[in-house]
Amino acid sequence: MRIAQVAPLCESVPPKLYGGTERVVSCLTDELVRLGHDVTLFASGDSVTSARLESICDQALRLNKEFSPHDAPVMTQLLIEQALGNGRHFDIIHSHLDHLGFPLARRNPTPTVTTFHGRLDLPELQPVFREYAEMPMVSISNAQRQPVSWANWQDTVYHGLPQDLYGLHSNSEGYLAFLGRIAPEKRPDHAIEIAKRVGIPLRIAAKVDPADQEYFKTEIEPLLFHPLVEYLGEITDEEKNDFLGHAMALVCPYDWPEPFGLVLIESLACGTPVLAYRRGSIPEIIEDGTTGFVCEGLGEMTAAVQRIPEIDRRRCRWAFEQRFSVARMAQDYLRVYEQAIGNVCERKEEAMGFVSTFSSST
Amino acid sequence: MRIAQVAPLCESVPPKLYGGTERVVSCLTDELVRLGHDVTLFASGDSVTSARLESICDQALRLNKEFSPHDAPVMTQLLIEQALGNGRHFDIIHSHLDHLGFPLARRNPTPTVTTFHGRLDLPELQPVFREYAEMPMVSISNAQRQPVSWANWQDTVYHGLPQDLYGLHSNSEGYLAFLGRIAPEKRPDHAIEIAKRVGIPLRIAAKVDPADQEYFKTEIEPLLFHPLVEYLGEITDEEKNDFLGHAMALVCPYDWPEPFGLVLIESLACGTPVLAYRRGSIPEIIEDGTTGFVCEGLGEMTAAVQRIPEIDRRRCRWAFEQRFSVARMAQDYLRVYEQAIGNVCERKEEAMGFVSTFSSST
Repeated sequence: MRIAQVAPLCESVPPKLYGGTERVVSCLTDELVRLGHDVTLFASGDSVTSARLESICDQALRLNKEFSPHDAPVMTQLLIEQALGNGRHFDIIHSHLDHLGFPLARRNPTPTVTTFHGRLDLPELQPVFREYAEMPMVSISNAQRQPVSWANWQDTVYHGLPQDLYGLHSNSEGYLAFLGRIAPEKRPDHAIEIAKRVGIPLRIAAKVDPADQEYFKTEIEPLLFHPLVEYLGEITDEEKNDFLGHAMALVCPYDWPEPFGLVLIESLACGTPVLAYRRGSIPEIIEDGTTGFVCEGLGEMTAAVQRIPEIDRRRCRWAFEQRFSVARMAQDYLRVYEQAIGNVCERKEEAMGFVSTFSSST
Repeated sequence: MRIAQVAPLCESVPPKLYGGTERVVSCLTDELVRLGHDVTLFASGDSVTSARLESICDQALRLNKEFSPHDAPVMTQLLIEQALGNGRHFDIIHSHLDHLGFPLARRNPTPTVTTFHGRLDLPELQPVFREYAEMPMVSISNAQRQPVSWANWQDTVYHGLPQDLYGLHSNSEGYLAFLGRIAPEKRPDHAIEIAKRVGIPLRIAAKVDPADQEYFKTEIEPLLFHPLVEYLGEITDEEKNDFLGHAMALVCPYDWPEPFGLVLIESLACGTPVLAYRRGSIPEIIEDGTTGFVCEGLGEMTAAVQRIPEIDRRRCRWAFEQRFSVARMAQDYLRVYEQAIGNVCERKEEAMGFVSTFSSST
């Protein structure tokens, strides 16, 4: 199949540091190539891929110091023109640009499928989904699509990661892990409070965005001076395997409708169970009592720590292999692509009448 | 002619307060209606027009307190889809949305002309103009198009205003006027310095944007406590007529490549000469020695104040009527529209071959 993958220009593919969308696009693209498909990746020029790379800028935008934020809309407009607008013949275009690709996707004879990577509960998105109601869309969890459940959803495709990126760690080193961003909605304060209540060490590996510096300084930093709490800052991909793998459990007291938590499946890949609040996609990812515990709040999560030994770490790894492998993700997407191509062929036959009318009337 | 005018959603048409682009679109639209054309105006719902109004939002975005800046790209995408994307049959679409309308304009069989209202010397715009090199564009001064002189410019159309919006004031009340925004590139400090050097009162009618508050507080406010200087704050459209009309001259020591200074022609409409630095479009608007003085810098402008009596105020009004009336602007644009329609008809004939090829090959 001739497949175009269209990634945002914000981060390279894969990202140099953080960037969930670009990481998933990278895994999917390389797996599709491995399966023998003819894949073109539209992404920043510093991307690394086994597919054919097409790029309109040398460097991803966020970490490029020469880049002004005013450039982003211009660069994105050019990317969309290049990837979704020209006469190239792909069998399918897979856009990861949210609704921004819709205007040209609608006008492109090549079928285009869009995966939404963010939250969809923002009121300003409703008129966009109404306008482009015919666009085939993919959600990354069933919870994500709730606010616009009436849109043209083709399927939910959970993220997947390569089998060998992380390995099963059979024994933990007796600490709880918090991994990701320090931000109010991630409730790192709850993670710290739980560790103190149960008397088990907590290791925090997290970045602090400029927007969250104030929150970090005033709310979180004062909590870090405690013998049970260790703050490691931002860690690399290589360090993640052991950081997650040696933990008793990953603690995710996230208090917002997380559309998909990539870190949760990274933890499962290491064999490490997950404790998380029942929000957004969490209950779809974690099987309560089997790969971790889905909790209502702070009290319940504190109690759940005592039950971590009930969880079989091999079962966590097995769940990752069964449900969150890149192979499964690629198969799911190929099914979505075939479906979209089939639908467009049907529409093309209908449209033939329109085209002849157009050419005879002008 | 069936004409679509597409205005930005930032301000209503005409704007409630500031908003040069929306003011010009308003004047042009009403004049085209007066001339008997069938005009549709795409603009915010609080616009007031004699044309048919089509709107996707009730209120213009900038002054709407319920509006979040994140909505702007979404609303603009919907506006472009509505105005440039659907199958309506206009003879011509006139876009005032800069390059944002290009992707759908390129794919719309209706000819679309775009007027650029801002400065074009930003490097990130170059690849956009290269990509959409076939798009017919209109500049608002010859100076404006210098950085992209190779683009598909159809014409320069100077702004115009209705004859009766401002009237000739034959006698001045002996003060200099500064009107517009307090901002570093407008050099209000130079205006104040000139007034002090020549010993003539200066009246300042200007708004201060949030981004310029710091500059105002530290650089300008301390200069205002002087018997010759009077700061009036922001004034209404109604007050402008007398504020400009009673001035000896409008002082415009602008130190940036102004693409077109609407306030300069408002001043001429009142019969008030203009002193301005030789930057951007200024020498195209002001006839040196006839409707004002085009100066190289502070010293030359200070000297020019002594020569204001040489300028015949009736000659300023006459220049406005001849060169900057809305009637002249509308005629210029109608000529551009006819030219664009003609070009598209030629291209359509060529395209007929393409369409038949397309329908026979699918």
